[in-house]
Amino acid sequence: MTARTLHLNAFLMGVGHHEAAWRHPRTDPARLTDVRHYQRLARIAERGLLDSVFLADGLALQGNVRHNALGGLEPLTLLAALAAVTDHIGLIATVSTTYNEPFHVARKFASLDHISGGRAGWNIVTSASEAEARNFGIERPAHADRYARATEFLEVVTKLWDSWEDDAVVGDRHSGTYADTGKIHALDHQGVHFRVGGPLNTSRSPQGHPLLVQAGSSEDGKEFAARFAEAVFTAQQTLADGQEFYADLKARVAGHGRRPEDVLVLPGISPIIGSTEQEARRLERELEELIIPAYGLAQLAHLVGIDLPEEALDRPLPEVPLETEGAQSRRKLVIDIARREELTVRQLLGRLAGGRGHRVVTGTPEQIADQIQTWFENGAADGFNIMPPILPDGLERFVDHVVPELQARGLFRTAYDGRTLRGNYGLARPASRHAAGDAGERLGVAVAS
Amino acid sequence: MTARTLHLNAFLMGVGHHEAAWRHPRTDPARLTDVRHYQRLARIAERGLLDSVFLADGLALQGNVRHNALGGLEPLTLLAALAAVTDHIGLIATVSTTYNEPFHVARKFASLDHISGGRAGWNIVTSASEAEARNFGIERPAHADRYARATEFLEVVTKLWDSWEDDAVVGDRHSGTYADTGKIHALDHQGVHFRVGGPLNTSRSPQGHPLLVQAGSSEDGKEFAARFAEAVFTAQQTLADGQEFYADLKARVAGHGRRPEDVLVLPGISPIIGSTEQEARRLERELEELIIPAYGLAQLAHLVGIDLPEEALDRPLPEVPLETEGAQSRRKLVIDIARREELTVRQLLGRLAGGRGHRVVTGTPEQIADQIQTWFENGAADGFNIMPPILPDGLERFVDHVVPELQARGLFRTAYDGRTLRGNYGLARPASRHAAGDAGERLGVAVAS
Repeated sequence: MTARTLHLNAFLMGVGHHEAAWRHPRTDPARLTDVRHYQRLARIAERGLLDSVFLADGLALQGNVRHNALGGLEPLTLLAALAAVTDHIGLIATVSTTYNEPFHVARKFASLDHISGGRAGWNIVTSASEAEARNFGIERPAHADRYARATEFLEVVTKLWDSWEDDAVVGDRHSGTYADTGKIHALDHQGVHFRVGGPLNTSRSPQGHPLLVQAGSSEDGKEFAARFAEAVFTAQQTLADGQEFYADLKARVAGHGRRPEDVLVLPGISPIIGSTEQEARRLERELEELIIPAYGLAQLAHLVGIDLPEEALDRPLPEVPLETEGAQSRRKLVIDIARREELTVRQLLGRLAGGRGHRVVTGTPEQIADQIQTWFENGAADGFNIMPPILPDGLERFVDHVVPELQARGLFRTAYDGRTLRGNYGLARPASRHAAGDAGERLGVAVAS
Repeated sequence: MTARTLHLNAFLMGVGHHEAAWRHPRTDPARLTDVRHYQRLARIAERGLLDSVFLADGLALQGNVRHNALGGLEPLTLLAALAAVTDHIGLIATVSTTYNEPFHVARKFASLDHISGGRAGWNIVTSASEAEARNFGIERPAHADRYARATEFLEVVTKLWDSWEDDAVVGDRHSGTYADTGKIHALDHQGVHFRVGGPLNTSRSPQGHPLLVQAGSSEDGKEFAARFAEAVFTAQQTLADGQEFYADLKARVAGHGRRPEDVLVLPGISPIIGSTEQEARRLERELEELIIPAYGLAQLAHLVGIDLPEEALDRPLPEVPLETEGAQSRRKLVIDIARREELTVRQLLGRLAGGRGHRVVTGTPEQIADQIQTWFENGAADGFNIMPPILPDGLERFVDHVVPELQARGLFRTAYDGRTLRGNYGLARPASRHAAGDAGERLGVAVAS
């Protein structure tokens, strides 16, 4: 395809993105830890020819587990189990750089990339919360320190992924040469945060580098994305905000000497879909009626650090300082929604319940497709991070009704082109930094048998 | 079954345990990173009704990759992909306590246990080598320090697994109560090596605790096993040595107030199987002829710290000190073999090539079964860690010819009794330390839907 193609990622979140999803009669909260549920979701997404599925993560039990389905599965182990039952769809896992070691992270993603035949992606996050710091016995690092560590972490991980050249494995049984050790490189990285000898003990994976994804929207986060990321998830409420973010990020990308088209911007969208607008509104209302205010208040405290009592529910959002340590951009977004729409706290919680600050679009498949097309064709998106309110129902509706509409409009693929995540996103396979000439351009892992 | 039953674990090692396996015409070295190879192996083992499969691991590229198939997959991601294509067989992954955090390890195993429906096991190791230390930027810890850390690590991990009681998840949609937060417990662990707040952010898994496996045979290692392990892998060359180890370990187990039958001793055995003894000997010779001495010398240096030049090959093993930092028991075992059998270094390498110090038994299915039966019935083993010389061929031969022989003798199961790894090994499910009365004895995860 030469035309610009829409990219779609399915953000898999338990039994749905709406915070009351688990209470809705069309979900089953017991599925939170049931691998068959996620395998079904991945197969539905693959049936819809989506680019990838994605799992968020955190390193503590946060939010209010009394009132929401928390305590699910770890992303890397889960995605390996999804790789086994799918063939084309990309598999993106969130892993933090704050409480991990680059050697482990490089190795697990290289392993997932091998296991999936080149479908692994890493959503790079830093861990901001007190609760996470407490699980690793250290003081919560400052924002800038987290990003400094993340930057060096990335440097080490990509060095480890490059430590085996594509053709390092020879596999010559006759001469007894398994690997050309001249093509396996030590790192001897000596940095501020890490000292890593290398090489990795997993050979170079099908994609060379698993796809790098990022979602921070702070100043540091955007710079980090512009420098390293190949796909960016973002929460944008209005077309104007989306356009501004898109233009800003692409400019930053260019500022780092990269081509703007090599970084895809994927705003989140939670589509509440009905065969009629009335049906969609009904589902939206059903979910709203299941919201538990105490849960929303806990989320507000956890996600953006605004800690309010139940008595505050029917008053406007009180004055709170914009600045905070961690989650500052998300905090600003939430405060902006409350002020712009003049909401009470209860109303604000309703607005956030669907997508935690991501855009909720309610309507028919055609109306959802209209929104997607508008953003895609007006400089606000290269694709979307689809966040169904209830699962699997919301993903099935999207795949069965919105995808065909997007295909009919010529916006979305009608078959997979390749078998890797990079192939789905139309992104190049990086050469090893050690590869001579065009050697690193070759696709596939060179293992003679 | 009331009779004592043999337990069999398939130790999956690339394309085979013999160090020249990758050069043999009946293997394909390109399969080292091919998930389908391992899925096939797991299915073969399950067809043979084996208790479990097991993956070893290290955190550095060690040994001589020029001459052997190294650089394979990470165990936890690989086992999650094997869980997806099997139903009964246990899945045991090696993970080190030396360069990991308890929160990550507890969570990944809890996740694998959920994903596999209760089939996860953890082979607990400490990391002794310089190469591994270099990948994590710290000085190589002393032997005793490694075990002190491992002990506290285990304490924290089991606390995290217990942090959700079995019936913490209520899932009551009507009242909006997802979890009974009175049954989810913080740890507030404040130890020498770790400070961990908890609770875990994955709910209690089907087995409560994934099975704990251990293989250290140093004094510290045996004490650790006696205190925590439920299955113990060990390398024993002779029946007498096997009996001594077995009796010693069971006595240590009793010394820790545990029942000896709650810890299974599984010596390693590499069976070279032929339909006639002559055919088995031929396969053994074929493999011996493919040995590369330079590789064996590198292994000797890496595994037991004895670093010799090629000129030493045709002389007896020189005097080397017994004491070393790390791998001391393995070192003693290797020196014992060389002295007892009066071997040259080249001959010693040949003896080690099959099983790295584990026992190699060459013969017909009946002869292999005789050896297994003798050890099992004479106080040297509760089962075996099966290490096929070449894969998948050697595992297929074992499953198709040795297993039926063991079944015919009434030693091995003819059907799986349950669906969990603990069920296969006949071991109880641990109650959460927070469970009142017999609540923790209940099987299954209590999630009302």
